[in-house]
Amino acid sequence: MADLAAALRDVVGAQNVLTAPADIAPYARDATAGYAQTPAAVVFPGDAAQVAGVLRVCRAQRAPVVPRGGGTSLSGGAVPVPGAVVLGLQKLDRILELDAQNLTLLAEPGVITEKIDEAAAPHGLFYPPDPGSIKISTIGGNVASNAGGLRGIKYGVTRDYVLALEVALPNGELAWLGSKCRKDVAGYSLRDLFIGSEGTLGVITKILLKLLPRPAAKATVLATFLDLEHAAATVSAIIAARLLPCTLEFLDQKTLRCVEAVVRLGLPVNAGALLLMESDGHPAAVAEEAEQMAQLARANGAMEVRRAKNAAEAVHLESARRQAYPALAQLRPTAILEDVTVPRSELAAMVRFIEETTRKHGVECATFGHAGDGNFHPTYLTDERDVEAMRRVRAASREIAAEAVRRGGTVSGEHGIGLAKKSYLALQRDAASFALLKQIKRAIDPENLLNPGKIFDL
Amino acid sequence: MADLAAALRDVVGAQNVLTAPADIAPYARDATAGYAQTPAAVVFPGDAAQVAGVLRVCRAQRAPVVPRGGGTSLSGGAVPVPGAVVLGLQKLDRILELDAQNLTLLAEPGVITEKIDEAAAPHGLFYPPDPGSIKISTIGGNVASNAGGLRGIKYGVTRDYVLALEVALPNGELAWLGSKCRKDVAGYSLRDLFIGSEGTLGVITKILLKLLPRPAAKATVLATFLDLEHAAATVSAIIAARLLPCTLEFLDQKTLRCVEAVVRLGLPVNAGALLLMESDGHPAAVAEEAEQMAQLARANGAMEVRRAKNAAEAVHLESARRQAYPALAQLRPTAILEDVTVPRSELAAMVRFIEETTRKHGVECATFGHAGDGNFHPTYLTDERDVEAMRRVRAASREIAAEAVRRGGTVSGEHGIGLAKKSYLALQRDAASFALLKQIKRAIDPENLLNPGKIFDL
Repeated sequence: MADLAAALRDVVGAQNVLTAPADIAPYARDATAGYAQTPAAVVFPGDAAQVAGVLRVCRAQRAPVVPRGGGTSLSGGAVPVPGAVVLGLQKLDRILELDAQNLTLLAEPGVITEKIDEAAAPHGLFYPPDPGSIKISTIGGNVASNAGGLRGIKYGVTRDYVLALEVALPNGELAWLGSKCRKDVAGYSLRDLFIGSEGTLGVITKILLKLLPRPAAKATVLATFLDLEHAAATVSAIIAARLLPCTLEFLDQKTLRCVEAVVRLGLPVNAGALLLMESDGHPAAVAEEAEQMAQLARANGAMEVRRAKNAAEAVHLESARRQAYPALAQLRPTAILEDVTVPRSELAAMVRFIEETTRKHGVECATFGHAGDGNFHPTYLTDERDVEAMRRVRAASREIAAEAVRRGGTVSGEHGIGLAKKSYLALQRDAASFALLKQIKRAIDPENLLNPGKIFDL
Repeated sequence: MADLAAALRDVVGAQNVLTAPADIAPYARDATAGYAQTPAAVVFPGDAAQVAGVLRVCRAQRAPVVPRGGGTSLSGGAVPVPGAVVLGLQKLDRILELDAQNLTLLAEPGVITEKIDEAAAPHGLFYPPDPGSIKISTIGGNVASNAGGLRGIKYGVTRDYVLALEVALPNGELAWLGSKCRKDVAGYSLRDLFIGSEGTLGVITKILLKLLPRPAAKATVLATFLDLEHAAATVSAIIAARLLPCTLEFLDQKTLRCVEAVVRLGLPVNAGALLLMESDGHPAAVAEEAEQMAQLARANGAMEVRRAKNAAEAVHLESARRQAYPALAQLRPTAILEDVTVPRSELAAMVRFIEETTRKHGVECATFGHAGDGNFHPTYLTDERDVEAMRRVRAASREIAAEAVRRGGTVSGEHGIGLAKKSYLALQRDAASFALLKQIKRAIDPENLLNPGKIFDL
């Protein structure tokens, strides 16, 4: 251990290596309830070469490495393993290039996600992915977990905006994967293999992102319904009309009541479900699409439909969705945000299943999420110190994950597998594809040093 | 060999195994000039289970397997190796499901690409990728090579539309990779690893595609310029105006003269470059974008700007681009279609480099392609029977590939590496990423039976 710390200091400088218990304590956890493990050390390299140097030291000393961005993982992806070196990437926080001719942006992994779109906007450009953690998560963490967000239905996920990556491999070499070209078929897409690999194959040290022209207009529509079946019917009607909203978000009754207490939108007291519907693009297209969505909501029994008259009103209506998790998190000591996902046609049936299953297990739960993607966030309201309550949460969560898979869905739409969903992965992956995961991990990280025990055990 | 053929007949039936020289001769080549190798046998399985069965037989008999869709590869991807079993997928040609609620289509790999969008259209849905070979290539081949097309600038490439794959692995097992969910982060994206892997990791047996709402309107604008610099300036101006055309195609002087002789558009005789510009989407947005593009072309010195008044005129103008390769291919015994790609800001410089380099080597060449993607098709007009001429073509081609990489581009934007570009791959891949390619191939296909010797040699 003394050797390890000394060797790390040689690479990154003494001021960038933490080993004192009080200093490293904050790095024992990420944003996932119920998982904590103090690491051996925490290091903060300043550039890609130092990241590679840290990996060479850790390999020589057989020390596991746990990469960490903003520490906002909801699946335990950044929780250390015993004896691990946490490799904190917050010092690699520069935007290195914005190429306005080729619509690309080159960033280091520690850049806060929100800063990407803020840098693009003055050039009339747009970085669409907007995970809920956008103000505190890093772009490196977003790429490592292939983060989603509210605009997925129209704009896809982080993967869809990554043109190239520089990664530090377990052997301490740097590799450049991809190019500035939207069309590039020169060998396997290793870039895509590393996206979403949760730090188990290498450490991302640079990210080349694709930007889009910024939409000229946006419209925001909020509708409330007596029950979720009417909300789900509206979603189906929007899809059947071949509209492509940029946001199509859903809140169940418990969530909307909780949000109303915080945001004071004056929602109908007996509303059982809420849809936030947004359209962006050309002003004429946006106006038409918003009107069509409002009409479809009414035709499907909406109690009330509101349309934002200006940007300030839009932000106010959007807060119904943006405040969902913070509002719910206030209710109980622990809020556990899940992310099961199903084909969107399964919306109503899946939410009803979540209601029944959590009731059966005596778990308090509110559900909201991305109706357009079939991506739900059942949020279990509990207390992580209560062993029995946590056991019931896990039982409900597992049944819900299995049901999502039965309906053609996935055990994780946005948060990744990490530690928290590791036991669910076999519900979804057939034996052959599960074996492939392990073969690839062994091929790239034969000594199992990079974020070991995440996603699966070797 | 007799054993192999007998074992294959047991799997797929005698009528689906070819071994007679006259029968297998057509499978010695694909669409790539200069590469031919007679296989040991050609088999036509009828379903995924038979594909897996063929792989088990070939593994037991140590016979290499070369998957084949439409045989339209331009990089030798479907050319057999000695002793190979060609696994023809044309009998797996069914569209199995169109899910209009979830906007997905499930197809077998042998479906002709064009049929995908034809099946989507009656449902108001759209499959955007449109490689030049769309009428004869298969969707399985498109996925295996991550095919591009004319709509790449706005709609991306085949990869962007693949949600899931079923693949038969070298060990004869079937694996399902992906799901119907647009958001799915349950382990490494093996789907993306297999897309573009050119049949070297497994055989694709089912493909789940994502569809989009069909654009309501389209506008087509054709502009001619005195030289390519003015055309390139127009492309830059369109990007700088933050427009997102669905097509932004370029023809050089030689190509447009050749096309004019075939299509008779009445183009100006002294035109040095042509741009085909298309916009699709909401009618108001399309009208505005088309007008802006026409104005930008004029502002950048266009000799003539035409706008299609109706669908028939649009098809006529589009034929300038669609007929480019067929028209050029008539000029000489052999036309070799290349696909170097650079960041789009390098358009003019790269085309000039192609002109100079082919002139230097005494190679007749015309260049056209996807200006919006920086993806060019220098087309070498030669005779593959002329050894000396082919040597000069290869010398020019290699210099052009190296220059593309120097300018931040790729040695292959659309056609893949196959055999023809294998020696170029090291120009682009650093040593670490090249080593990763081999590690992954060895992990998944340890006996090197799947399309061996394609992309790289082990």
